[in-house]
This record gives sequence, C-alpha cells and structure tokens, in this order.
Amino acid sequence: MTPANLANLRVVLVRTRNPLNIGAAARAMSNFGALDLRLVTPFEKAFREAVSAVGAASVLAEAQEFDSVQGAVSDCSLVVGTTAIGHRELQHQLYSLEDAGKRIRKALARNRVAVLFGSEKTGLSNLELSHCHWLLRIPTREEHRSMNLAQAVAIVVYEFSRGGRKTETKSRLSSKAADMETLARINEALREALDVSGYVHPRAAASAEEKLRRMLLRFQLTAADAEVLLGMLRKILWKLKSQ
Amino acid sequence: MTPANLANLRVVLVRTRNPLNIGAAARAMSNFGALDLRLVTPFEKAFREAVSAVGAASVLAEAQEFDSVQGAVSDCSLVVGTTAIGHRELQHQLYSLEDAGKRIRKALARNRVAVLFGSEKTGLSNLELSHCHWLLRIPTREEHRSMNLAQAVAIVVYEFSRGGRKTETKSRLSSKAADMETLARINEALREALDVSGYVHPRAAASAEEKLRRMLLRFQLTAADAEVLLGMLRKILWKLKSQ
Repeated sequence: MTPANLANLRVVLVRTRNPLNIGAAARAMSNFGALDLRLVTPFEKAFREAVSAVGAASVLAEAQEFDSVQGAVSDCSLVVGTTAIGHRELQHQLYSLEDAGKRIRKALARNRVAVLFGSEKTGLSNLELSHCHWLLRIPTREEHRSMNLAQAVAIVVYEFSRGGRKTETKSRLSSKAADMETLARINEALREALDVSGYVHPRAAASAEEKLRRMLLRFQLTAADAEVLLGMLRKILWKLKSQ
Repeated sequence: MTPANLANLRVVLVRTRNPLNIGAAARAMSNFGALDLRLVTPFEKAFREAVSAVGAASVLAEAQEFDSVQGAVSDCSLVVGTTAIGHRELQHQLYSLEDAGKRIRKALARNRVAVLFGSEKTGLSNLELSHCHWLLRIPTREEHRSMNLAQAVAIVVYEFSRGGRKTETKSRLSSKAADMETLARINEALREALDVSGYVHPRAAASAEEKLRRMLLRFQLTAADAEVLLGMLRKILWKLKSQ
C-alpha cells in the first residue's frame, strides 16, 4: 500500500531541538509511507529513546545521523528547503506547497528528493539553504506563520502522497436509488396524511402534490430509505384515519 | 491572507484525553485561519492552562465547551466525521480527504460546517457518528493508520484551505442547507408522530431515534425544504394528538 514514489523521499530535520518533535515527525512520515528520516546534528543525541510517538519506532530506529546538510543530501538529485518566511532568500525560487507538491511528485517517480526542515527557532540558515535547489512554503496566514515542526512535516508528506492511491477510499456504498413508483406511493401517502390533518387546503391540492413531488425528488432517496419512509407514513396515516 | 471560507469551519474535538493535543490542534488551526474550536467533554477540564502551543492562545481562549456532539454542531448544516478505519460504518458514505476537501470547500462558501475528531484511543463512537452526514478518512497506509490527533487536525485544515481564494465562483447554484437544530426538531416531531402511531416499540425507541437521525441526514435537506417538512409533521402531529 505504500505509494512507491515516497520511497524516494528523504525527510531531513536540521538541528532539531526537541526530540518529541523528531518522534512526532517520524510518526507522521510512517503514516504516509515516507520511511527515510535523516537528522543533521540533532540537539538531543538520545532522541531515539526520548520519544514515545506511536508507531514511529521503526522509522526512528533506521534514521541516519549526519554532521552536515551536505552529507545528508549527497545521494539526492533534488533538494528542497522549507521556509515559513515569504521572501527571505531572493536567490531561491519559492513555491507554495501545492505547486511544490506537483514538482516533487514528478521528481520522486525517478529520483531521490530531500526535503529540509530547519530548527524550531531559527529555521534553515543561509548556509543550509545554499544546498537547496528551491524552497517551498506551507501557505499559513501572515498573522501566524510559524508552524509546529512535526505538523509541518505531516502536512508536507501528506501533500506529496496526494493522488497516490485514489482507488482505496472511493469505495462508496453505492446505494440503489428509490424508483419513481415508490416515490409516487410516498407522495400519495404523505399528501393523504396532510389532507386528513388539514395542512393542504382543497383548492391548493394540485399544486401541493407537485410541490411534494419536487421536494421528494430533491431528497434523492435510496430504495431502502424510501421503503422505511413509506412504512412510516402508512402507519401514521392508518392512525390518523382510525381515530 | 485568511481564506474567508474557513470562518465557517468548526473543528470539534470529542472526548480528547491529552490537553497537549488540544493546544497543538489549536495552533495548527490558527496557522490556517480556522479559529472556531469546540470541545465536547474534554477529559482534562483545565486544558486551557495545560498547553504551551505557540500562537494557540486566542483560539484556546475562545474555544467553546459542550456536553454533547448535538450541542456542538447545532448551528452547522454539514457535519463530517473523521475516521482512521476504512469501512467500520457502512451506513455512512466515506470520502478520502482530497474528495472531502472539494465538497467541504464548496459547502463552506455558504454554510457552517463541523468536522468531528474522536478521542485519541477510540475515535468517534457510533452514537457520535450518527450526527454526521458523511465521513472522511486521511489516506494513511494500512500498516500504520492511526495518526496523532493534532497532526490529523493540521492536515485536514490545510486541505480545506487549499486554493484559498479561487473557489468563489463555484457556489452560486447550491441552496442553503438545513441546520442541525432544524433537523433535530424534525427528528423529534417525526419520532413523536411514530410513537403516537405505534410505529416505534418503546423498547426500541433509542435506536429508532438514531436511525431516524441517520436517515434525515442522508436526505441532505435544504433549509427551505426542512421548514416545509417540519411544518407538515407538526400539523400531522397536532391532528394525531387532537383526536
């Protein structure tokens, strides 16, 4: 079930301070089948033990540590930096995550791609950015740009996995629709109940029937629901008439 | 930069156990301009003080607490549940987040939409799901389906914010949908009519109410049709009782 292309993705966390964020990022990666985590000089050396993120164990166990961004991305052919800031780095092309996702999905089909996330406080330094082909920005609002690191990883990996397995969740419970004959019976029962109750004025009866029919069509009843509704109305009608 | 349509979104966290998750969810919401957080019976009453999520303060300060899902969604006209499980609830239509996003962005242009997230351990109960029009699933891989709650909120809110301002033109044709409070009144009137008619056996009353609620949600009533239907049922009920 893992989308094949995410096997080519390397998530590179640079100078991460909080080991809980590393664990949480690993969990989100695992959720979407991105299993290659790389850490450049994490602040807490014991990050593998410090975390308790559900299901992240195998991603963390296999995470590689590097001394530099250069080492972490050496086997990749596309390196993309993430930034919360609009235009800090004019040397770089900046794409929104949505546009970046299209480019990266295409690249992942053939090539290894590294995506870099900087430290929680400072983001990526200019030196670290110098290893990037271009940058992406998650389109947060201006008033509150700074995201939690692991949430940013989660959203980025989710975006890259888009369109990966369209077939799985489309399994719509294809319900049989009610046929017109059943609808006509519902209409009849409802109109009779309304007649008995005095809801419909006799002079307006014809237009009432038409309005009811239009309304019932808008409900787009399934065959099963139509049967239930008809049963209810008949029971109500029987009671109305029996008194 | 705030996409105007997210002003109509209500994120509803149901029976959340860990207050850190509430704070983290609030931060992600704030990042994307979704500012209306609702909590149904959170486990830790002091959740507002327990958190330290950067930038989440104002969302948390304004978060509303409710005793029930019904109360939390009463002003909404579309209620969507989230689930990690593929096919638990066959009564509900299930969409992938990508497809759900398209529908919800359209709905948000005109109507208030609630998205429900269940507790970390158990997700949403069947009773809680019975308030939902349909369900969405974030397409995580089978081997590791269960996401961190706040990361799930982050991804969902991000997806809803996609294409922020391009969606204006789409929504002209769709009518305003019925709100949950009107549906609850319809449910009540219909159930009473069925009680009086002897359709519902007293022992089955609770499950009947749940079934009725599910059925009414499937009808996807417009506000106008809901008013008409409620008027009809009240007239019928009045007649049933007056004899």
